[in-house]
Parts: sequence; C-alpha cells; structure tokens
Amino acid sequence: MTKLISSIQNPFIRQLVQLKDKSRERKKSGLFLIEGIREVSLAIKGGFELETILFYPDLCSIKRLNELTTQQLNTIEISKEVYEKLAYRETTEGILALAKSKNHDISNLAFNTKNPLILVAEAPEKPGNIGAILRTADAANVDAVIIANPKTDLYNPNIIRSSVGCVFTNNIATGSTSEIIKFLKSNNINIYCAALQASGEYHTQDYNKPTAIIVGTEATGLSDEWLENSSQNIIIPMQGEIDSMNVSVAAGILIFEAKRQRNFK
Amino acid sequence: MTKLISSIQNPFIRQLVQLKDKSRERKKSGLFLIEGIREVSLAIKGGFELETILFYPDLCSIKRLNELTTQQLNTIEISKEVYEKLAYRETTEGILALAKSKNHDISNLAFNTKNPLILVAEAPEKPGNIGAILRTADAANVDAVIIANPKTDLYNPNIIRSSVGCVFTNNIATGSTSEIIKFLKSNNINIYCAALQASGEYHTQDYNKPTAIIVGTEATGLSDEWLENSSQNIIIPMQGEIDSMNVSVAAGILIFEAKRQRNFK
Repeated sequence: MTKLISSIQNPFIRQLVQLKDKSRERKKSGLFLIEGIREVSLAIKGGFELETILFYPDLCSIKRLNELTTQQLNTIEISKEVYEKLAYRETTEGILALAKSKNHDISNLAFNTKNPLILVAEAPEKPGNIGAILRTADAANVDAVIIANPKTDLYNPNIIRSSVGCVFTNNIATGSTSEIIKFLKSNNINIYCAALQASGEYHTQDYNKPTAIIVGTEATGLSDEWLENSSQNIIIPMQGEIDSMNVSVAAGILIFEAKRQRNFK
Repeated sequence: MTKLISSIQNPFIRQLVQLKDKSRERKKSGLFLIEGIREVSLAIKGGFELETILFYPDLCSIKRLNELTTQQLNTIEISKEVYEKLAYRETTEGILALAKSKNHDISNLAFNTKNPLILVAEAPEKPGNIGAILRTADAANVDAVIIANPKTDLYNPNIIRSSVGCVFTNNIATGSTSEIIKFLKSNNINIYCAALQASGEYHTQDYNKPTAIIVGTEATGLSDEWLENSSQNIIIPMQGEIDSMNVSVAAGILIFEAKRQRNFK
C-alpha cells in the first residue's frame, strides 16, 4: 500500500525542502530531488538510484508511474499542498523523486573508447549555461563532460531543469583544474584550450586523436594553468563588434567541428 | 549646463519607467531605454539616435560620457533614487540613454553583398536565447538576422542585456513568416530549414551560395509554411538520449559550419 503524506510539517517533507534549496544539504546527505517525468525517467536510464518517488495523483497517475520502470519503487502519495511546497518548475507534472548522488570524482572517470572526445568547462557559473552545455554534450554523445573547479553542485534544481535531464545522461566528472590536467596528460589526451592568445583557428586543427576541448568563463576565460598545459590554443574567428560569444554556444561550435571531422562516429 | 532631475515623480522619469517596463509604450512612442556603457556605445556605433543620456555622477563621470562620442548629446544628471528606479541590471554603471527605435520592417532590408548569409529565427520566446543568437550573429558577422513572427519587441531590456548590445550591431529585420519567405524567394536566397523531417545532415550541404538558415522553437520547431518553402531541410545528427538542443547553440553550430565553408569571408 502506498503511504500518503499531506502535511508540509512532516519531517521527511521538510528534509526534501532543504535538499531542494540548499547545496550544503545535498552534499551532506548525498541525496537530491528530481522533478518531472522526463527527468525522473532519464535518471533511471542513467543508473541513478531512486530512494523514493513522490506523486500527486491529480497530475500523475499510478499507471503513469508504473510505466517509468519495471523496478520496484518506493512510492509516496502527496497532497496538493505538499506538492506545491516541493515543486520548483512552472510546468507541473505531479512527480518528484529523491535520488542518490553519484561519485563524480575525476579518479573514477573511464571511457568505452581509446579515442575519446571530451568537453571540459572551467568554473561555469550560470545554471542555464551549464544546462545548455550538458544538452549539447548529450547530443554529441561525447565520452565525458568534465567540470573543473565547479562553482555549484550538479544537482542544483536549476541545472537539472535547464539540462532537461541531461545531467543524468552524460558521463560527468568534476575535480580541480590541476587534477584534471594530470588526468588528461596521463591518458595522452590532447588539450585544446579555447583562448584568445597564441591561438590557431579552431577549424584548422585536427581533432581525430584523443581530444579534450576546454572552455572558460565569458568574463575571464581560462586560468593560466590551463594555458600553460595546452597542447594547442584554439579560437573561433570573431568578425563582429564584440569579442565574446555565449559559452555554451562556443562549446557547441567547437564540439560539433570535432564531431564533423570524426564523421559523427 | 546639464539639467538635474532628482524626483522619481518627475513626469519624464515616469515616462521612462513605462518605456522600461512596457512593450506597448515602446511601440507607441518609438522610443526605448538603454542601460550600460558598452550598450550605449554600441547603439551609437550602430547608428541609433539618442534623444537623451541620463547619468548618475557617482557612478559615471562627465568625462566618461564625453568619451562615448563626439556628437553633441542632450544629457541629464539624475539622483541616486531616480537612477535606481530606472536601472534594471545588477551591475550598475550609472548610465542610461533614451533612444529612437529603428524601422526593422523586412521591406527595408538590404545587404552589402550579392552572396548573403542570413540567420532567421521563427517566434523565439526567451530573451536569453534571442540575446545569445544575436551575439552569435555578431561574431559571425552575418549579413542579416531576421525574426519571423516575433513574440516580443527587440528593445525589451532583457534582450538588450542578454545580447550585450548586439541588438544594436546586427542588421535586423522582422516580419511575418509569409513576408520573409516572399523576400527570400524574390532575392533568390536558398532556404535551409533546421528540421527533423526529410532532412540532410547539416554538414553535407553547401552554403556557398546565398543562404538563409532558419531555426524554430525548441518546443514546436518550424511552422509548416517554412517546411513547405524549404530549399533543403537540415538536421544536426543527435546521438544522445534526448532529441533537442538549445536553439541558440543549434543556430551557432549551423551558422559557423556555413562560415567555415565560406572560409570566414
């Protein structure tokens, strides 16, 4: 029988509100909240362990829940009031899940190929940009996305939302810039830094060997440590009045040029 | 001598607040508000007529103002209170300008080349995406950006901000989808529609002749009218779990593939 929770004062619900709102709580507990049918479904597909599914039956039927997976899920029915307290999106689908974080430590990163294509973003700040980068990485089916010196945890509700669940479909690692450079070098992966200095035009380079494309922030670019360890700096020719592009657009242009050269294989 | 306005009850200031907040007021008056040094500077460079510059001297000195242009500008000093009432950005530079809208009617659109590269976006909704598209278009120095069936006016403060002023540097036209298709056809410009149906992979097509690349919304794609009038549908191969990319990223990938084929000329 499914349990019902109808009070927002319920201690479990109060814990979920904390997980939604506070990065510190997510880190401490190793748990986070997912909202939406597609997002929950992609998390299951991506091998995330779901502790509990919460549903508001007026918006999400038991039938719909059962279509998500053949796994036995621990489900809790919630009242409208509880649902509205927990939901953060404007479009409501009546479903939330409490999930366990994965360990994204760079030391755990592995590939299914000897010729990986990797996207690295250093210290990206805006959840909307991180989400767009993760969508691009999913579409390109890159072998890994690495976040260097992360400013925010991956399970921030705004990242989950803006990635439309691609935070669950990508092979993601995080670490300090030093750790990541060490990892790439020890795996003989070429480091292509998107930079303005001493750069070759991006489309004149060859990305057919093991490749990591590194993008920095729009405000300050990449740190010196990356530039000192670059195999080749690359630049997108800019012919307009301003000299910067949205970071997720720049990442998309670079990754898809590499994909084009690799014949989308 | 520079005039000083210190009251937010001043009728001119109240008019400016309306222009900031209401698309209807901008359309009725043909005027809009610009904030920020770079934005005002790009608007001057882009040939926009500035009726008045407002500055809060603690943040923006007269000297700084004079560096903007050799034109004689009508300047008004404003108090902190008035500045805070008018400013919409978080980072404050102490400068605002009241500017005249341009006429973006498609019938006025002209190029400096016989072989234009054009980006068309149908009914884009999010100001952040429109801003990112305009930044990409500036960087690529496309010959025009056309907004079909616009959902919002170009001088929305969030578009100006997210475009970091590229709303002033691009050659922009707007019109209905029918009008734009008619314009493109009468100018013998090939229409490449980003679409999932009956599409060729984008990187296998030739963009060396007069080219318009058309992108739709993430939710519904392009309208049937575009697809019926397409010279060639194009698709970015998607190899991940989801089947959509951020629209500004997709536009960037397509436009820069065309630029690459044209050797960035």
